[in-house]
Amino acid sequence: MNKWKNLKIGKQTIDDLIKQMKYTAFNARSLGEAVDIIEKMITDKNCVKFLGLSGALVPSGMRLCIVEMIKRNWIDIIVSTGANITHDIAQCFGETYDQIDPEYVDDLELRKKGFDRIYDLVSPVETMETMENNILEILNKIDEKEYSTFELLNEIGKHLNDNQSIVRNAHLNKVKLIVPAFIDSVLGLQVWVNSQTRNLKVNEFKDLGYVVNLNFDLKKKGKNTGCLILGGGVPKNFILQSVLMADKPHKYVVQITTDTPHYGGLSGATLKEALSWGKVDEKSLFTTVYCDTTIALPLIVNSLIERL
Amino acid sequence: MNKWKNLKIGKQTIDDLIKQMKYTAFNARSLGEAVDIIEKMITDKNCVKFLGLSGALVPSGMRLCIVEMIKRNWIDIIVSTGANITHDIAQCFGETYDQIDPEYVDDLELRKKGFDRIYDLVSPVETMETMENNILEILNKIDEKEYSTFELLNEIGKHLNDNQSIVRNAHLNKVKLIVPAFIDSVLGLQVWVNSQTRNLKVNEFKDLGYVVNLNFDLKKKGKNTGCLILGGGVPKNFILQSVLMADKPHKYVVQITTDTPHYGGLSGATLKEALSWGKVDEKSLFTTVYCDTTIALPLIVNSLIERL
Amino acid sequence: MNKWKNLKIGKQTIDDLIKQMKYTAFNARSLGEAVDIIEKMITDKNCVKFLGLSGALVPSGMRLCIVEMIKRNWIDIIVSTGANITHDIAQCFGETYDQIDPEYVDDLELRKKGFDRIYDLVSPVETMETMENNILEILNKIDEKEYSTFELLNEIGKHLNDNQSIVRNAHLNKVKLIVPAFIDSVLGLQVWVNSQTRNLKVNEFKDLGYVVNLNFDLKKKGKNTGCLILGGGVPKNFILQSVLMADKPHKYVVQITTDTPHYGGLSGATLKEALSWGKVDEKSLFTTVYCDTTIALPLIVNSLIERL
Amino acid sequence: MNKWKNLKIGKQTIDDLIKQMKYTAFNARSLGEAVDIIEKMITDKNCVKFLGLSGALVPSGMRLCIVEMIKRNWIDIIVSTGANITHDIAQCFGETYDQIDPEYVDDLELRKKGFDRIYDLVSPVETMETMENNILEILNKIDEKEYSTFELLNEIGKHLNDNQSIVRNAHLNKVKLIVPAFIDSVLGLQVWVNSQTRNLKVNEFKDLGYVVNLNFDLKKKGKNTGCLILGGGVPKNFILQSVLMADKPHKYVVQITTDTPHYGGLSGATLKEALSWGKVDEKSLFTTVYCDTTIALPLIVNSLIERL
Repeated sequence: MNKWKNLKIGKQTIDDLIKQMKYTAFNARSLGEAVDIIEKMITDKNCVKFLGLSGALVPSGMRLCIVEMIKRNWIDIIVSTGANITHDIAQCFGETYDQIDPEYVDDLELRKKGFDRIYDLVSPVETMETMENNILEILNKIDEKEYSTFELLNEIGKHLNDNQSIVRNAHLNKVKLIVPAFIDSVLGLQVWVNSQTRNLKVNEFKDLGYVVNLNFDLKKKGKNTGCLILGGGVPKNFILQSVLMADKPHKYVVQITTDTPHYGGLSGATLKEALSWGKVDEKSLFTTVYCDTTIALPLIVNSLIERL
Repeated sequence: MNKWKNLKIGKQTIDDLIKQMKYTAFNARSLGEAVDIIEKMITDKNCVKFLGLSGALVPSGMRLCIVEMIKRNWIDIIVSTGANITHDIAQCFGETYDQIDPEYVDDLELRKKGFDRIYDLVSPVETMETMENNILEILNKIDEKEYSTFELLNEIGKHLNDNQSIVRNAHLNKVKLIVPAFIDSVLGLQVWVNSQTRNLKVNEFKDLGYVVNLNFDLKKKGKNTGCLILGGGVPKNFILQSVLMADKPHKYVVQITTDTPHYGGLSGATLKEALSWGKVDEKSLFTTVYCDTTIALPLIVNSLIERL
Repeated sequence: MNKWKNLKIGKQTIDDLIKQMKYTAFNARSLGEAVDIIEKMITDKNCVKFLGLSGALVPSGMRLCIVEMIKRNWIDIIVSTGANITHDIAQCFGETYDQIDPEYVDDLELRKKGFDRIYDLVSPVETMETMENNILEILNKIDEKEYSTFELLNEIGKHLNDNQSIVRNAHLNKVKLIVPAFIDSVLGLQVWVNSQTRNLKVNEFKDLGYVVNLNFDLKKKGKNTGCLILGGGVPKNFILQSVLMADKPHKYVVQITTDTPHYGGLSGATLKEALSWGKVDEKSLFTTVYCDTTIALPLIVNSLIERL
Repeated sequence: MNKWKNLKIGKQTIDDLIKQMKYTAFNARSLGEAVDIIEKMITDKNCVKFLGLSGALVPSGMRLCIVEMIKRNWIDIIVSTGANITHDIAQCFGETYDQIDPEYVDDLELRKKGFDRIYDLVSPVETMETMENNILEILNKIDEKEYSTFELLNEIGKHLNDNQSIVRNAHLNKVKLIVPAFIDSVLGLQVWVNSQTRNLKVNEFKDLGYVVNLNFDLKKKGKNTGCLILGGGVPKNFILQSVLMADKPHKYVVQITTDTPHYGGLSGATLKEALSWGKVDEKSLFTTVYCDTTIALPLIVNSLIERL
């Protein structure tokens, strides 16, 4: 616990401000503590680092924040929803968005004009079709065999030319990109389409096997693990459960979320609850920041760039 | 739109109350409208009906509500998180819970004593181990081949003796039980363990293929679809996307959620937004009830039993 | 703590269902516990009982639930926002509402047509004008002197003919109706207008003095206090602080809210936090139900009617 | 609407980042737009500017952000909860806080040790007693007459020596400080205590009269109004209603909140809904940022300092 201080306003950098927030209260304080924990995780040479991606992070414009973390070797394994990876690939082929006012939008009109809406953004349906055509072309170039999701995405990453892409940079920086609900995405559907005529398969048990083995391997080598979890859902659950097989609590955990504990679901569950499961232990450093990721993430990444 | 009326208190049944709520406001009104929509969906003989399960519904005591819906043929396809199915099977082998006060709980103490916590419930770790042993035994009895998740769960359902089980009743009533993030669960891990020594495989592309074909088949036959979505996450996304392949909007959609639209994620997305995607259309009946499922679901099921 | 049980569905009354909820989890459990606590409060002959009203409860159709509690002598003191009292009086003079879909509404059009919107309700501006005219007429009949808000509302209650009115029934049943932010309402504005030409004054220090004296009086007599707090805001703060002067923690507290603790405001603050202030103590019975009041309140009142 | 852009990370000031956010989505976008609107409001020489303060802003360390806005003449009228003003005065006399972990805190222990808790802060009870003694001393120096809340706080401001105080700086910069629920605070209670022996009175109708007259005066002079509303509750309602008497919609409105629209209360109500009431009109610039004020406010104030 730190002594509380009133936050001072005036000429200061983003990290100056974040460092001050640590001495205040509520989610400003948590954000200040979160950056300290992530800094410790990143600078721990003996640590395998997870990043969880839920919510429409890529459409919301957070793609380059994630790419920056990959390029700077802050992350080893990404666990994502299918949608974020689908949109990352779509952006490689020109997917873009227009801002819209969600309170005034006419969704039937959008439908007629060929736009899909994501809260306050709209995207032309054709850009998703362009993505589908391009990904099918790429898939046809990939050898017919059985892949884990991270192996398949690594192959796909080889064929993408966009150096602002998460999938491309994951490939270049040897970051494993796991998508546990792979069939629940447009990308998954295209791979299914391709698999109807070719012998290219996705076997998610290979992902699971990789994580199980990693687990025991890390334990044997006395390595740490840590994670930055953006949003809830499957990525949160998968990352937190991923250390249970070898009884190896995460040493560092930061979650950024707007889900609440008191409705009982895992997405909103506190990290204190995770203690009972052995997902973290009493030596772990952990905190939750209740904040829209679109505000918290750029602040975190910018602060860390200032520090490191 | 209905004329507003003050809600009257006094001797009345659950359905009497729900019917009155329709004429009030906010989520009481939505709840009243939701029951009407689900009633229309259930009594539409020409409709294929989905149920989405997210959040810790089975631990929270909602299992028999779901079983009741299955037994009464209100549901054709369930899309669930792995956790709900894992706990359903665990309850077949004795998993039970104790209530705890989440504000006073000592999670490290729980860890030492061997209890896992789910918000205001704790469950002994052994009951999960009992589940693991029993499911491995069952898996050993199941033929070595490649299964969709719904095929595998159907096989598992044959070997369960608990007539209060979702998996058992899904088997008995020919309800398909799809788990898109299958590897993100204790059940998935046990199947993986089994698959290390036996040639039993899960291929989720078979689930996806089933849904794709169903889609085109329903379109050809001019059938309707509808859904009751409890919580967000993968089940919500999967069910709403499941009708896009044949451009076949859901005719009836009710979602019960505590997620909010204004953070931009799909879990909180409005059904109006779904119009732009063609997941629903202007002829669809849909509403969202912002309420803890543990309160809304028993009210809904009881009301419908009174009506039907 | 109770042993957990799966909730059973089938022929049952509202109170049967609520009693079952107590053995489940999350907010169903809290709701079950809340009804037990309120029952204990109501049947404690030695207890002074507060009711807090925040949020648009009267427009939402909950007026008769509140009136029922007054008529049955379940409540001694109501602390309310000005808006709820204003709408209660407006309903005496014909204010009514129409349901509207908040996602499709054109608010500028409403403005032009003369409707005010409250989320999914609209009300014609004239009905508020009718209220203003009527209340001014009533005020002219009231003696020119200085009133506490509860004294003034008691006087107003004498002149209302609507037996479904909260203000009327508070008068008839000697329930004190305190509105701490009196000037923050249309009613307050009309009283101000009246006070420009007559010597009728509101002095809220008389309300505060009443509560301070009550406090010491209750302590001297060894009486208990309890409260049902619907929503947060000033009514919650006022009721919880109202027992601090004589260091007299509330024995029974139930709050129904959708505000969350983790943003640090008092509206969302837990009742456990209230322990540190002495607003409750270790012998108090208290719980929070995270639920829209429009759903929870009718369930609570109906259950209690079955029981009492 | 702006063309969407991916947010770029790298060396940049706080305002650089905020300006980029405007081109993204969700609440980052709203935050970017909010700063633009507040900038326009501040630089509109013809505008009377309101600030609304709800939630534990002063304890949370945001006091100097508010003082900075006062000193720079960004604000003309503050409408606040009593608690924020009470804590501001308490800080003048040494009130300070210690950080605590809200998930591990023992509130009964705090009670015994003499600490009050505000979510993740604790404050010694004696500092509030020190405040009470000092404010009573100050009140004794103030002339016996009837005051509006802003007149009384102006008098109190004369006697405070802390140049980091909101009340002091409001006095020095002729900012009117209105507290509509004055009796709902420790400060209000002390003024009541003082009023028992002296003829010092608070008459909130004087506050209301001031606002009513201001309203008509602004209309006559063709002046604009605008507001930054931090949190909901009475301050939000009061500020938005304060322009209805002369039918004079606010030209600029920014609200920072974590309350949600779909439970129907005014705290969470959208500004689009305010259109129907005439609180804003079609020419108004307005937006809502769903974010903890402790994160959003320092970013806003720092950005504006860079710009202005």
